[in-house]
Amino acid sequence: MTPETMAPLRQRLQELSDLEGAASVLGWDQNVAMPPGGAEARGRQLATLARLSHERWLDPGLEGHLAAAERALADDPDPAHATLLRVVRRDLERAARVPADWVARFAGHRAAAYVAWVEARHTGRVGRVSELLEGTLELSRELAGFFPGHAHLADPLIDRADEGATVATLRPLFARLRAALVPWVAAWSAVPAPAPLPPGPYGKDEQLAAALDLAQAIGYDLGRGRQDTAPHPFAIRFARGDVRITTRVRPDDLTEALFSSLHEAGHAMYEQAVDPALEGTPLAEGVSDGVHESQARLWENQVARSRAFWVFALPRLQRRFPVLAGVTVEQAYRAVNRVVPSLIRTEADEVTYNLHVVLRFDLELELLEGRLAVADLPEAWAERYAADLGVRPAGHADGWLQDVHWFGGTIGGSFQGYTLGNVLSAQFFAAAQRALGDVDAMVAAGDFAPLRGWLAEHVHRYGRAKPVEQLVRDATGGPPDVEPYLDYLRTKYEALAAAPVGAVGAPL
Amino acid sequence: MTPETMAPLRQRLQELSDLEGAASVLGWDQNVAMPPGGAEARGRQLATLARLSHERWLDPGLEGHLAAAERALADDPDPAHATLLRVVRRDLERAARVPADWVARFAGHRAAAYVAWVEARHTGRVGRVSELLEGTLELSRELAGFFPGHAHLADPLIDRADEGATVATLRPLFARLRAALVPWVAAWSAVPAPAPLPPGPYGKDEQLAAALDLAQAIGYDLGRGRQDTAPHPFAIRFARGDVRITTRVRPDDLTEALFSSLHEAGHAMYEQAVDPALEGTPLAEGVSDGVHESQARLWENQVARSRAFWVFALPRLQRRFPVLAGVTVEQAYRAVNRVVPSLIRTEADEVTYNLHVVLRFDLELELLEGRLAVADLPEAWAERYAADLGVRPAGHADGWLQDVHWFGGTIGGSFQGYTLGNVLSAQFFAAAQRALGDVDAMVAAGDFAPLRGWLAEHVHRYGRAKPVEQLVRDATGGPPDVEPYLDYLRTKYEALAAAPVGAVGAPL
Repeated sequence: MTPETMAPLRQRLQELSDLEGAASVLGWDQNVAMPPGGAEARGRQLATLARLSHERWLDPGLEGHLAAAERALADDPDPAHATLLRVVRRDLERAARVPADWVARFAGHRAAAYVAWVEARHTGRVGRVSELLEGTLELSRELAGFFPGHAHLADPLIDRADEGATVATLRPLFARLRAALVPWVAAWSAVPAPAPLPPGPYGKDEQLAAALDLAQAIGYDLGRGRQDTAPHPFAIRFARGDVRITTRVRPDDLTEALFSSLHEAGHAMYEQAVDPALEGTPLAEGVSDGVHESQARLWENQVARSRAFWVFALPRLQRRFPVLAGVTVEQAYRAVNRVVPSLIRTEADEVTYNLHVVLRFDLELELLEGRLAVADLPEAWAERYAADLGVRPAGHADGWLQDVHWFGGTIGGSFQGYTLGNVLSAQFFAAAQRALGDVDAMVAAGDFAPLRGWLAEHVHRYGRAKPVEQLVRDATGGPPDVEPYLDYLRTKYEALAAAPVGAVGAPL
Repeated sequence: MTPETMAPLRQRLQELSDLEGAASVLGWDQNVAMPPGGAEARGRQLATLARLSHERWLDPGLEGHLAAAERALADDPDPAHATLLRVVRRDLERAARVPADWVARFAGHRAAAYVAWVEARHTGRVGRVSELLEGTLELSRELAGFFPGHAHLADPLIDRADEGATVATLRPLFARLRAALVPWVAAWSAVPAPAPLPPGPYGKDEQLAAALDLAQAIGYDLGRGRQDTAPHPFAIRFARGDVRITTRVRPDDLTEALFSSLHEAGHAMYEQAVDPALEGTPLAEGVSDGVHESQARLWENQVARSRAFWVFALPRLQRRFPVLAGVTVEQAYRAVNRVVPSLIRTEADEVTYNLHVVLRFDLELELLEGRLAVADLPEAWAERYAADLGVRPAGHADGWLQDVHWFGGTIGGSFQGYTLGNVLSAQFFAAAQRALGDVDAMVAAGDFAPLRGWLAEHVHRYGRAKPVEQLVRDATGGPPDVEPYLDYLRTKYEALAAAPVGAVGAPL
């Protein structure tokens, strides 16, 4: 294998990568900057780029270059090339299995479903969106059907986001989590909740500056990124040199901007640290939804919701926000670790969060299996919240309509990554602590480079070049495992519950 | 001709229009938001979109649909379809004449030239950029050579931007202008200049808000647009529903943000008012550089540099900027109409501005004709500034390196549109005054709708559907003509020079 053998294929992959990067710029703009009048054309522009990209994937020239490279590899094995060819072959086969007709029908359907979803949340009238969700369910089943040999209809949908995960592997993991979490939530939320941080008001520009300051402190590179506001925070990659984050700001709640920025910076630092040699190929991005989320949650939770982090961060924030002057590190630590069952996933604390995810996952399976009708979804949703979290939505918007995923994508495959990410975040963090020693002391001193370096070395740089299972084994010494995560939660929140607010200082 | 006959062609055109819109989003982002690390990938992404677009233009399918539509038109004439087919055929022929090899070489060259230009402006070392400019000159000659039958090498380059204009038509027009302007500049700039507006400082956010307020007042639709800052102000169209403007801000000079916003809003209002029926075709944009510039200059100069406009605008600005409290309308009017020969085109006043353009046009022709060597350009530039404006650049950055055009595009065709725009702005404005009556009174009252409506009716809505010459004749009753513009300047500036500052009130 010489670089020349790979050159024609690499050129095709570079073109696909450029098209994908271009589409991402359009998507970023759609969420961050686009005026209302731009929506219709933007939908068309994105559909056109997606169609061109699909066409280029299915172009016989690409298949020819790939086959030639595979033959050359057989004669002259090379692990790096083998990895690239394996992933390209997988992506090509996935693309080839989905007929252009389905792609076109789904593009039209999802656009309509998204509009109906926005409208239903606004008006409270759910007839239209419910009807369209039936169509989404049918299209999701149809998509799964293009991938024969699956044990469960959801498996091909999950596999798109978290390669290797299946209903059979996820069900016991999620059941174990749920069995532990439901009683913990009940117990720990019964303890009087500590006071939140003072309600401000906090100025928008100051909040954005403070959040960006902390994101830079943990290692987000602004020379290859930027921060903006968006209705729903996200991170997005246009290329290795341009990975952006967004956040949102509430005048009365500083934590919204801080934690969403640190979460998205965790995603972005992953993309910023992928091996430059992989740029311009499908390997140059995070390997799965779950691993991606783990990098975001690790910085958001294991780091930024630790006592040590507030030793570092509180004085910086106090210099910027005089209203925080009287707050102690212990008070701040407790304020950002309140356990309060709530209705909205994206606002949930660490302990209740996974219950939000597991119930969505279970409902997705029931819908796909035909055991739950779309018409019965709102009630099933409400029942499950009552059972798992002891709260019941007042309407549709804080119930089954709260997340966009089903109304802009498929049913199946969208949610498991959030909880896989939480689970993996604890495994990676524990492994880093074993390797680095006293990470807390480093965090308290604002020295984030060792942790970031460990993650870059063991996770980030591989991009998609190392499969998830192997990545986790190599980095942590064992397979994906829920126990380190449960240990983390138990240790942290039992201590907090055992010594409630009054014991450590005056309430805020 | 039925819509069905046109449908296959329209679909192809829609796709091309989407690709062009997507590329424009990437270009906007490059100027407005992109971090430094994104530059390399962005260059590739834009080149990929341009290549795909060129490929789609040359796809035999498009030619087939076009030929079928042309045959159908021959059987069943229809003026609207005839116009569309004429422009599509022209664009296709232009695209087909330029070999992909030249496009690729030029893309690489212009990227290198741009980088060298930025560097030379920074370091003052011009060896590399001068050498690359030789290459640009060669590539420009080569491009012109793909279009046989031209009377002058510059003609095909000019025709790309201002269809129908040629060296033979522009030379006498520009000579007439220069003959009038050189003595006027000498005379009017000898009169003691009125005081500028107070030097502030003006806050950035307040300036942007004030500029946007005035842009909205004249009719820029923010539901289909937005304002950002950029190093060099521009307007850009992604689609009819998304036409954006940019501006720049100086803390000590309010006029920079105000006039650049009103100028770009003039461009944007043109694009926002094109007939929706033309959307998704090559007709759905401004017809030429010259007509586009006329719409920007009309709002910037004929409107916003009039006494009437300041009757409207000054109180609004005074509410926002207390430092303007003591300024009278007459003082403001004079402050924004100072005639001062200067070195930088983009900062020039109305009277000197066209001398900057005409001298660039003349130098372009000399370079293309081989009468001037690139090595002699700096001195030729300096000589001409001394002769026409009585000033001489101190270095390269305020001389021949000041404009980006030659270092990101061709030599030839880039500058004539600015002066054509000034000339046409006066013709259109005079015609609107004849049709509407006392436009000054409307402007003073902040009633811009009649003028905007007249422009939309006679200029904007046609997009590229009406050729420039016919557009000007239909709108103004005569062919493009420099005399109304010279009348406008003479009337306005003779009055200002005849009654200098002291005569109308206390100096600022």
